[in-house]
Formats: sequence, C-alpha cells, structure tokens
Amino acid sequence: MNVHALPRPKPKTIANVRARLAERLGARVTVSQAVLDQHSHGEGLPAVGMPDLVVFPETNEEVAFVLALCNEHRVPVTPFGAGSSLEGQLAALAGGVSLDMTRFDEILEVSPDSLDCRVQAGVTREALNAHIRDTGLFFPVDPGANASIGGMASTRASGTNAVRYGTMRENVLGLTVVTPDGRIVRTGSRARKTSAGLDLTHLYVGSEGTLGVITEIQLKLYGVPESTVAAVCQFASLEGAVAAVVMALQSNLKMARIELLDEVQMRAAIRYSKLDYEETPTLFLEFQGSPNGVREDVETMQAITADHGGGAFQFAERPEDRTRLWKARHNSYQAVRALAPGKANMGTDACVPISALPACLLETKADIVASGLTAPIVGHVGDGNFHLGILFDPSDADETERAEALAFRTARRAIAMGGTCSGEHGVGLHKIVHMQTEHGEGVDLMKAVKNALDPNGIMNPGKLYP
Amino acid sequence: MNVHALPRPKPKTIANVRARLAERLGARVTVSQAVLDQHSHGEGLPAVGMPDLVVFPETNEEVAFVLALCNEHRVPVTPFGAGSSLEGQLAALAGGVSLDMTRFDEILEVSPDSLDCRVQAGVTREALNAHIRDTGLFFPVDPGANASIGGMASTRASGTNAVRYGTMRENVLGLTVVTPDGRIVRTGSRARKTSAGLDLTHLYVGSEGTLGVITEIQLKLYGVPESTVAAVCQFASLEGAVAAVVMALQSNLKMARIELLDEVQMRAAIRYSKLDYEETPTLFLEFQGSPNGVREDVETMQAITADHGGGAFQFAERPEDRTRLWKARHNSYQAVRALAPGKANMGTDACVPISALPACLLETKADIVASGLTAPIVGHVGDGNFHLGILFDPSDADETERAEALAFRTARRAIAMGGTCSGEHGVGLHKIVHMQTEHGEGVDLMKAVKNALDPNGIMNPGKLYP
Repeated sequence: MNVHALPRPKPKTIANVRARLAERLGARVTVSQAVLDQHSHGEGLPAVGMPDLVVFPETNEEVAFVLALCNEHRVPVTPFGAGSSLEGQLAALAGGVSLDMTRFDEILEVSPDSLDCRVQAGVTREALNAHIRDTGLFFPVDPGANASIGGMASTRASGTNAVRYGTMRENVLGLTVVTPDGRIVRTGSRARKTSAGLDLTHLYVGSEGTLGVITEIQLKLYGVPESTVAAVCQFASLEGAVAAVVMALQSNLKMARIELLDEVQMRAAIRYSKLDYEETPTLFLEFQGSPNGVREDVETMQAITADHGGGAFQFAERPEDRTRLWKARHNSYQAVRALAPGKANMGTDACVPISALPACLLETKADIVASGLTAPIVGHVGDGNFHLGILFDPSDADETERAEALAFRTARRAIAMGGTCSGEHGVGLHKIVHMQTEHGEGVDLMKAVKNALDPNGIMNPGKLYP
Repeated sequence: MNVHALPRPKPKTIANVRARLAERLGARVTVSQAVLDQHSHGEGLPAVGMPDLVVFPETNEEVAFVLALCNEHRVPVTPFGAGSSLEGQLAALAGGVSLDMTRFDEILEVSPDSLDCRVQAGVTREALNAHIRDTGLFFPVDPGANASIGGMASTRASGTNAVRYGTMRENVLGLTVVTPDGRIVRTGSRARKTSAGLDLTHLYVGSEGTLGVITEIQLKLYGVPESTVAAVCQFASLEGAVAAVVMALQSNLKMARIELLDEVQMRAAIRYSKLDYEETPTLFLEFQGSPNGVREDVETMQAITADHGGGAFQFAERPEDRTRLWKARHNSYQAVRALAPGKANMGTDACVPISALPACLLETKADIVASGLTAPIVGHVGDGNFHLGILFDPSDADETERAEALAFRTARRAIAMGGTCSGEHGVGLHKIVHMQTEHGEGVDLMKAVKNALDPNGIMNPGKLYP
C-alpha cells in the first residue's frame, strides 16, 4: 500500500500543545516510545503512522479541551479505541495526537424496560454483554475482535448476527460527539424512531473519526431468545453452499446467523480451534425464537440444504458447544494467520446484493486459485458480505503486490455487481482507492460535509476521503 | 402558527427563469392559479405559501436543469410529491418553483432474488405494492396517506408496520439525488450493508427537500408472510392497554402491528368506517409468521392482554376483514375530521422510549381533558409513537391558540421524557420551534451541513432549521 507521507506539525507546535495538555491531564499525556508504537497502527495492515503524543482523556470535557486545543494549533487528532480496526484507520499519518478512548469504560445506563443502554465509547462489546447478562438482554453486533463500541460505531461495524439484528447503523439510537472545535453535542434521542431533522447520528456512524470524536453511544438491546439452536452443515461444493443460502433468504426464513467458510477456511479453523469437521465448504447456522418456531425453521433449512448437496446437520446443542463453535468462527483471522506463521493476513471485505452473491463468490474463488495465493473465504453471507484472508509475506515485494492486486480486484468486482468495497470494515487508508469508483460525485458531497464539520481538517487526516 | 413571510424573488427574475424553463419543458411549466393553489400547502395545517411557478420534470436531467437554473438565479425550489405531508413542508414560503415530482412514476426495477427494487420518487406506496403483488413480495412502510415514496424518504416516514419492519430509515438502501447546483448523484448501493464512507443516503432521508431533490429510491422488499392474523382487543382503561403493549414489547413478542386507539378515536373510527366495536381504548394487533409461530404469539399476547384488563380477541380472519380493519386505521385522520365537520385537525406526532410511554400517554390524556378540546389519541405504540388529532376552528383565534398550546406541550413532554417532537411526520414549519430544545448544539451542525450542500439556500427555505 502506498502511504503518502503527510505534513506533520512543527516540533515547536507539538511541544507547546504537549505542555498545555500536560497542565490539565498530567501523566495522561505520554510520549513513551512503547505507547507511541502501540498507537501507530491497527490490525492487519502494515500502515503505520507514528503519533507525536498519546492522550488518555476521561471525560467529555477533557476530549473537548484536547480537540479545541489541537484545532487552534492545527494538530491532527486520531481517535483510538481497542486498536482492532483493519483498514489502517488508526495510523497517525500526519502525526499529532492519538486520542486513546479506553478510559471511557463506563456503562452509563441500562434500561431493561426500554430495551436500550448508554455506554461510553471505550466499553468493549464483550464487557457490555458481561455487564447485562443478568438482565436477560444482550447486544448482538459482534465483529470478530473484542472491539470498543465507539470504534464499532465509527466504522459502522457488524458481524455474524447482522442478518437478523442489523449492523451498528440499525442499533445506534443516539450519540454524544465532540466536534473539532470542542463542542459537546448529543445526537438522536432515546425514541426508537424520529423524523426531527437531519440524521446526525447516522452521519457520525461510519465517519471513522473524521468528523469528531464519538464519546457516548445509546444502543438498542434485545431479549435473549427463548430457544437457540446452532448447526453445522457441510457441502461438497461452494456453489451448493451459496445456492442454499440464497434460497433460504428468498424463502423468508429468519435466521440469526448464516456463515460460510470455504474449504481453506475450514482447514484453518479445524487446526486452530481443534474442530471435528471435514475440510469442505461449510455453513455455520443459528436459529432463534420459540421452541416450535426454531423447530420449523430448522426443518425448512434442512430441506433447502439437502436440495443443494448439503450433508446432515451437526447440531451444537449445549450452550458451551455453541460458544465453542462461534468462538472458532470469531477466531478466523487468527486461524488464517496460523496457517502460515510469519505471513501477514490481508483481510478484504466485500458485500453484494444477494442475487449477485453466487457469481461474485465463484469468480472470486477462481481468481484466488489463479493468483497462486492462499486466501480462505469466510463470510456473513446472509448479508451478501464476505472476506478473504489473503496470506502474504510483507518482505516479498512480488507476493505483496499480488496480494494487493487480488484484494483490489475483489473490491472492484463487488462494486461492479452493485455492491460495495466494504461491508463492515470501513475505508480507512486501504479502501480510499475505491471511493471514487463506488461513489462518483458522492465523494464531493462527502468532502463538503467533512469540510463543513472539520474546517481545519484535524480529524484523522489522510483517511476515508480520496 | 406564525408564518414569517420570507423575501421572494423579484418578478423580473421569475419571468426570466420561467422563460428559460419553458424553452426546455414547454407546457410542463405553469402559472395556472388552480395549480399554484394546489401546490401552496400540504395536508393538515393552514400553512400556505404560494409558489410563483409549478414545474413538472420527467427526468433526472430535467431536475438538474431546473435546480441549476434556480440556483444560478437564487430562486427557491420546494419539492412536491403526493401533497400529503402534515407539518407544512410543502408551503412555498419564499415563492419560487414548486417542483412537482408526480411524473416520476416509473418502477425502474424489481429484483425478487435480491428482495429489493428501485423506483422513481413519484411512485406511491400503493402503486408499488399493486405492481409487485404477483411476486409474493411487499413494501411494508405505510403512512396513512397514499404518499409518494420520494416524499416518504424525505420525511423519514413510517406507519403501522414499523415495529417489525422499521421506518424509511431502515428500508432505503440508496438514492439518486440532484444537488442544488444540478449534479446527479447516486448514494448507497444495492448491498444490504456498507461501511464505505459517509452515509449520504441517511443524510438525505429525512432532510425534507432542504439539501436537494430525491429522484430515485432503492428499497428493501419483504416476502409476504406465510400466515397473518389480525385481532382487536378492547380495554376498560387506557392504562391497561398501554401496560399490555409495554409488556408485549418487553416479552420479546414479535408483532407486525400494535396500534392504540383511545375511546375518542374509536368513536371516530366506528362512525366513519362503520365498525362494530365498543367506544373504549382499543388495540389493533397483527401477527405474522409461520402458522405455528403465529399461534404461539397470539396465545402469549392473549395472556398478556387478559392480565391488563383486555377483553377477548376479536379476530379479523379473512383477508377482506383485515383490509377493512387496517383501512379504518389508516383513515383515522379523515375519521377525526368527520367528528366535527368544519373544524380542522391538527395532527401531532410524538415518540418516546417505551418505558416512558405509559406516563407520557396518561399525562397527555389528562392535558387534553383539561384543555377542553376534542383530541383523539392514535398511535403506533409499539414504537412509542403516538398522535393527537386536535380538532379546532381555524377562524376561532382562542380555540386555535389552545390547540397550538396543547400540541406544543405534547411535543415538549415527549422531548423531556427522552423522546422526540416528531416520530414520523418531520419538522416542516410546524416543529421548528422544538428543534433547539430537542437538539441543542446539534442544530448548528445541521445548519453547517445544510450550508455546505445548499450554499445559496434555495432548497425549501424556511423549513426544518430554526
């Protein structure tokens, strides 16, 4: 990936800002090299940009103070959550301040009566679900990593449950954001729906820290379903597995999860998570509802999969078996890396209309084979969303180039089929090259909004906008 | 309502623009007084603003031509669909062009495989559903009026099905918009989810024609459920009916519709639609799913309603009975007007978190009684959304003031309870007075976005922004 070096603030400016920050935040401003290193990148990509300072705010007012000061001195600010984003969002390309939000770790309110909660941005999805376990509620959005809720909102994340529960777009009711000039603004409300004015909430969801900093999030919660059944169904061919998914979606079958793993991803998962399955294209399924409803749905899906060459369902009946199954699914990124120690894993993220999914997946599979690279396919195929984990040796220029080219073609194929270059990882640095192709003049509108809300361009420079 | 007169374009400017428009659009530019009258207002409110011209474009390029020309000459443009909006959105407060989109009446594409379609903005929801009936699919969002899909997107409309299928926010995948300077821009994609950049789609959804003109809409469709059961359950008290709704929502019970009508609204509906029910607080319910699933849901809801003083379910079994029931619900606006011929019906539109719904409804009911006005309550209470139809004589200044005051207090009560002044009707002219209270500094961010995307302020001036 070409990382264009952006102009950095002058050392004198940084020294001045650092001194002002330290006056208010004390030891929560640091230039320790280990901390700077840790805040120079996310997961998955070699994109690195070293911040000049890392700051650990604890209140909305402190975030406002940091931003207003940086805005005054034109010092870039890159918000940082759990550090798990995959497209280079966290690299401080123009130096400046990495704003570490992990101390925003408070769950501010949980309302079982209204099925919602309000959390600070640094709360992780696992911490939230552990906290609310006794209420009989859960928060469904589950990217593989134990990401922060603020980071998930910023990248419009989703995961395995989105086919039933939606993505962060559908599950964020409102936000507290801090603008680059230091205003603390609440967007949305606790109402389930509203048509009172421009939808600022969904403007900030997915804006990847380029418009301001998300500090608090109002989220929908859901009752834990009465009955849950997970099953694994293995296929002789990728075609059969995909065709079964398309048929299930078109049959109005409500499933909570429909995950596809190709035979290479299955090999990785079997080895890494010690699963007892065949190395063939496989669907991981989950059904939720009333006991009768689940039984009906399972039977319908068994008929559909059998029609498309699927084997007998292997049920994960006990909660611990289900947990093990979904943990294996969530660990696919690590499992792929373990296939070839020393190699890096370039994760792609394409999403197409359901009707285009079979052609898109099969063309992509043929492309992988032709490339000579190892690149397992795994996907939230119920949404038309899939990933490749392209293994490559970053020190091998030729292999790196082939990996980049394969990722590039995968994104362009999805766009050409009416889809998007990113279903859930965001744009960051790595997908900027596709923005013009996907959005055309929409890019100019995005830039106009960016310039209106961050006129000095201090928020996460070098990301998202071409 | 105070309608501030806004400065209008000079007659010479209008004459010039009219001549340029007529060169390209011929007789589809009109100054006929009857047409101007018809385009000077929506439903429900006395807000009137006479346009200077009404224009009937037929293509995106014609819309772009009209907008670019008006932008050049600083002539206001107010988009106009079915004319059914309720908060004064359609009044041409500063004169100029009323852009009538009814000739955008083509259904461009229906994909049963991907469960989506693309329609032009002037297609009405009933026309769309009639068109796709044979595919086994339907589009669920159903405001009472037979509104245009473009208007519904512009006001972020919803209706009786939103508790299950969401509002326009959840059901619009992408748009074609024309910007004030005449660019034709496609937002979103056909993918079910995307995290590729700022969410322009949801910035335009709900923007009420203030950022540009929506000309095409990509919509989600749904399979007609296998089984549908509608039922009516009558209660001795409003408290009991609302408590049953809250309990149903908290019990994870998936219903397609949960509509509340108080005893006054029931009197109106019984008279207008010749229904055979009691004049008591009533729930109209609809259950959808597999036959077994529906049976289970009905039984659970029967137990819940019985616990809260609800009577036996009166089922509308046959499709024609269901149609009659929901038609009566959809006609509630007309039914209320028929209660007092000659009076106007001021529709309010508040939405609160579910936990606040009982207190909000009961306080509002007490407020209505104290006001001495007739104001039936009807609501999509599954979303926490409800309306009053406040009957008043517009020629009676005192009664008009009391009606406005009741509407004002209803909106402020909802905001104070964590809700919104508008669940689904939008802001228009009538709710501007609440924007600062509900959004605080968020209003400044909305204005910044507005100024960035419509720098000359030609789009629907005097609406939405305080």
